[in-house]
Amino acid sequence: MSTAPLRVAMLGCGVVGTQVARLLTEHAGELAARSGRPLEIVGIAVRRTGRDRAATGVAPELFTTDAEELVTRADIVIEVIGGIEPARTLILSAMAHGASVVTANKALLAQDGPTLYAAADEHAVDLYFEAAVAGAIPLVRPVRESLAGDRIKRVLGIVNGTTNYVLDQMDTTGAGFAEAVEQAQALGYAEADPTADVEGFDAAAKAAILASLAFHTRVPASAVYREGITDVSAADVAAAREMGCVVKLLAICERTADPAGGEGVAVRVHPAMLPRTHPLAGVRGAFNAVFVEAEAAGELMFYGPGAGGEPTASAVLGDVVSVARHRVQGGRGPGESSYAELSLLPMGSTRTRYHVSLDVADRPGVLAQVALVFADHEVSIETVRQQLTPGEGDAPPRAALVVVTHQATDEALAATVDDLAKLDVVQAVASVMRVEGE
Amino acid sequence: MSTAPLRVAMLGCGVVGTQVARLLTEHAGELAARSGRPLEIVGIAVRRTGRDRAATGVAPELFTTDAEELVTRADIVIEVIGGIEPARTLILSAMAHGASVVTANKALLAQDGPTLYAAADEHAVDLYFEAAVAGAIPLVRPVRESLAGDRIKRVLGIVNGTTNYVLDQMDTTGAGFAEAVEQAQALGYAEADPTADVEGFDAAAKAAILASLAFHTRVPASAVYREGITDVSAADVAAAREMGCVVKLLAICERTADPAGGEGVAVRVHPAMLPRTHPLAGVRGAFNAVFVEAEAAGELMFYGPGAGGEPTASAVLGDVVSVARHRVQGGRGPGESSYAELSLLPMGSTRTRYHVSLDVADRPGVLAQVALVFADHEVSIETVRQQLTPGEGDAPPRAALVVVTHQATDEALAATVDDLAKLDVVQAVASVMRVEGE
Repeated sequence: MSTAPLRVAMLGCGVVGTQVARLLTEHAGELAARSGRPLEIVGIAVRRTGRDRAATGVAPELFTTDAEELVTRADIVIEVIGGIEPARTLILSAMAHGASVVTANKALLAQDGPTLYAAADEHAVDLYFEAAVAGAIPLVRPVRESLAGDRIKRVLGIVNGTTNYVLDQMDTTGAGFAEAVEQAQALGYAEADPTADVEGFDAAAKAAILASLAFHTRVPASAVYREGITDVSAADVAAAREMGCVVKLLAICERTADPAGGEGVAVRVHPAMLPRTHPLAGVRGAFNAVFVEAEAAGELMFYGPGAGGEPTASAVLGDVVSVARHRVQGGRGPGESSYAELSLLPMGSTRTRYHVSLDVADRPGVLAQVALVFADHEVSIETVRQQLTPGEGDAPPRAALVVVTHQATDEALAATVDDLAKLDVVQAVASVMRVEGE
Repeated sequence: MSTAPLRVAMLGCGVVGTQVARLLTEHAGELAARSGRPLEIVGIAVRRTGRDRAATGVAPELFTTDAEELVTRADIVIEVIGGIEPARTLILSAMAHGASVVTANKALLAQDGPTLYAAADEHAVDLYFEAAVAGAIPLVRPVRESLAGDRIKRVLGIVNGTTNYVLDQMDTTGAGFAEAVEQAQALGYAEADPTADVEGFDAAAKAAILASLAFHTRVPASAVYREGITDVSAADVAAAREMGCVVKLLAICERTADPAGGEGVAVRVHPAMLPRTHPLAGVRGAFNAVFVEAEAAGELMFYGPGAGGEPTASAVLGDVVSVARHRVQGGRGPGESSYAELSLLPMGSTRTRYHVSLDVADRPGVLAQVALVFADHEVSIETVRQQLTPGEGDAPPRAALVVVTHQATDEALAATVDDLAKLDVVQAVASVMRVEGE
């Protein structure tokens, strides 16, 4: 067996790349022992050379701006640029030149995974991406390998650290959304433009990847129902608290009955109220955690740091060792598995529960009118609470109705809320939020 | 590529085996899609044929008492007999005949792992054992594959469901040890002879396996320091509660400084007080959870059912799909990795904290004498609490001293306790327990 080093090329050298390079250098001996052959960094593609990159421990002459050339002379290519292009073209080129690829690129996988998988198959190379979902938490490997003998029913996860930090701040300090985002930005948990996180795009990409793996079905990010947390108010968080709940941005992937017959897959990302007794409710700060329910295994939970240079680098390097071992010993990791081809169900047919808070007129018969609207849409009410707040000065007292429903289709719930807004006795639909985890 | 079925033989058909057979039968289509070829049960070796085994879904004529013959005609052998012999001989024979092996046998792996690994290497077959540690929780694969690019510092786990159920009952109901064990037996969480669980043998075997994987060092079960929970009293549990702690049976595997220079590995299983704020403190009933601290990944936690027929079968079948894929596509899973050969440190050199409760004479100067004994052994005291209980009738009042130490070597702590027992002013050393997780 050859003992020549395996040639490792890296694309990108930001927060994650710097840690990957450092660990590849510092732990060279251990990584060689685990892989079966030494791993040698043959180049790191960056946008500009000449910067101080001493933290990588990599010789300056190994940095290059010619990524296209670099990927033609590697056994393993690590892609940590992120985004769609040039990452996509470079990964496809690397595979065409015979390299296995390790990537942390959730956006690309969620948008164009099948193309990448097909290229990996065509060129008989590996495509690994543990770091793309939930940072350092081993999740991709457990879902696609450890649970390969089981049937996954549901994945319920906190997969975005920024939004979890923001919601946790709102819950613990009573801060509003804008204030909590500013704090997150000051601490480096949120980017200057936090859109990808707070609007749920990042979580939706991860949900698409997880659902594809869990249900052996192609789920593009565009099929994921997505609502961010920008509309979550301090009042919503307080209302959740009153119910013994906490507001979390959840990624939910479910195998469920298809109204058209057979089974389907529903994938969604939205804020939801979760009982404080649920294991995910205790996930604080920027941590991630994913709950997996499988038919035989039962309920499993995976918890850990969901982002950050070092944790993400740990996930990348675990994959590097796996693909290196395949280079040394032969064999390949699992490719795309989409044999199940379950139908992708629209949000409207998904069964959820709602927490609806209404500002109403303070006069008899209001509850009856409101209840009738729910009944018209066949949505069963679990609890109703009426609250009367004295008006200020000469203003009349304000009355509120807080309704929590049993499970119904999202469609029926949405139509109910629309009709509630049209009632004369309803002055405003103050808030609507789904309730999960019961 | 051949599409002939892979021949699967199973040794044993108890609680786990029945579920493995059932799932292999019921999910045949899915398992074939995931493996690349159908999996066909060619035989199940049992001690006695003729029993009703309809729950397996396997034709009666496939049951045999001739295990030796069965292992010669399989591609994959699933061993769920447990115990050392005949499991060991059958596994070695299966490998010699070219079969890959999936086993849930923690006792055998912990006692004789290197022999099994060597046989797997010699015959170029796979040896997988996810089900041997923490039931359905994916742990072996994450530790030996996902974290292969990282350096694990510490594994801290609740890996025995029986003892966790017993300790949880003692904590929540105030029951004594014997009573809690009876409840566990009544509910099927403890065996009629609970020795292997309550004396920590089961947890020690799992700790040996985990430490071997985490530190790339051979750790036999005999090198694991082991204390069971039979001496844990209702008073200990109450004392823990007063400190804001809960008593758990912990398996602890640490990479630590070797007093002789370099790094060593310390592996131990014992009851310990754990702060209620620690994520492991919330693990209730018969559940398992394992905390892994790695240099780059940070703190990870894995949680789920640690035993039971279906969860264990899920872990077995995940392994079956992995080894089947290797049969179809080539390649092998990771073999033994013991390149690090770290020294195994004795319990005496392990640094821990102690909670010591002393019954003492109620007179001035007692604390000074007690403190001097700690100082003599260079054990630093973190807190001392003096308690005075009025004596009954004419009896003099009883005084107690509760001391919690800072970290010191277990040797120094044990010697301190020995000397405390010799003091005239100490009437009894009421309890001694280690404190972890801070």
